[in-house]
Amino acid sequence: MARRTGRRPGKPDTREAILAAARAAFAERGFDAASIRSIATAAGVDPALVHHYFGTKEELFRAAMRVPIDPAALLPTVLAGERDGVGGRLVRTFLGVWDSPAGTAGVGLLRSAVNNEWTARLMREFLVTQVLRRVLDHLDLDPAELPLRGSLVATQLLGLAMTRYVIRLEPVASADPETLVAAIGPTVQRYLTGDVAA
Amino acid sequence: MARRTGRRPGKPDTREAILAAARAAFAERGFDAASIRSIATAAGVDPALVHHYFGTKEELFRAAMRVPIDPAALLPTVLAGERDGVGGRLVRTFLGVWDSPAGTAGVGLLRSAVNNEWTARLMREFLVTQVLRRVLDHLDLDPAELPLRGSLVATQLLGLAMTRYVIRLEPVASADPETLVAAIGPTVQRYLTGDVAA
Repeated sequence: MARRTGRRPGKPDTREAILAAARAAFAERGFDAASIRSIATAAGVDPALVHHYFGTKEELFRAAMRVPIDPAALLPTVLAGERDGVGGRLVRTFLGVWDSPAGTAGVGLLRSAVNNEWTARLMREFLVTQVLRRVLDHLDLDPAELPLRGSLVATQLLGLAMTRYVIRLEPVASADPETLVAAIGPTVQRYLTGDVAA
Repeated sequence: MARRTGRRPGKPDTREAILAAARAAFAERGFDAASIRSIATAAGVDPALVHHYFGTKEELFRAAMRVPIDPAALLPTVLAGERDGVGGRLVRTFLGVWDSPAGTAGVGLLRSAVNNEWTARLMREFLVTQVLRRVLDHLDLDPAELPLRGSLVATQLLGLAMTRYVIRLEPVASADPETLVAAIGPTVQRYLTGDVAA
């Protein structure tokens, strides 16, 4: 039985031990440096079992952070179309996820990231490796500028999530998504492809 | 002894009872509708004692939220100069406060706002009545647009605080303030005075 997608069954203790080891590894060493092998060793299991339960390293990361969506699956929607529209499409896609039932998990993630340094590190790794890097890699930009551009996009999207879903400040809290795409899309577009240097 | 500024001494129990009543009143009814009189009644003290301990309603609000700075005192810096530069000056002033020792209190406020609905309401009231309204009232804008403009500014500033001080995503986390003023100032300027309609 090598089911390749979705949540795997398995002994709850073993699953939880793997997820705890994964959280520690991703927070301490970062997503790129943490290996399935080292996570398996820390959890006292065979690497094949980690793959069997959780699939790829990306899937393990999402399971460890309890992220119910796969950002990679949304990427084609963001990238399809004019380069000048990628900011607006990113905002629209972001709102689509957060306005869905997955948004509840998002608020939980924000809450835990704010509450301690360790979960903040996980959130940072997730943002960079699973969301921002994937968009930026497709825009043919100067590699030296990517970190600043990515973290500027993060300021706007994290703040949108905080304002709409956590602080619930009106009218952003209940605005039609297209109102926010029109207002905030150009900001994200400038951070991605415009002039942001001092 | 009618000292008019700073923290007042007084019986700790009485002070705390007033602050607790103030938090409840500001969260439940909002800053504008909550009166010193009703807060005094809820705390079982004379309104004159509330004024004696805490000064104005604004000062009471800041004490109740443990905000160590007075946003009104920073307003002249933000408003002095060209109207086209108000976005940049707001970002510079915001970073000046958060990069100072007061920033620790700011992270505490964000943390408590994220952790429950009640403190989120206080944060919302504070943002609107003590920060955004004061800036927007000086820019001679269409009153119908002020709430959207104010809450858009909130998305960018809250997100900047989250990214730089909580998630600590590089390079925003340790960027020179002027780099961020150059990158983010134009965003805040557009939200304040530019075209934001759908």
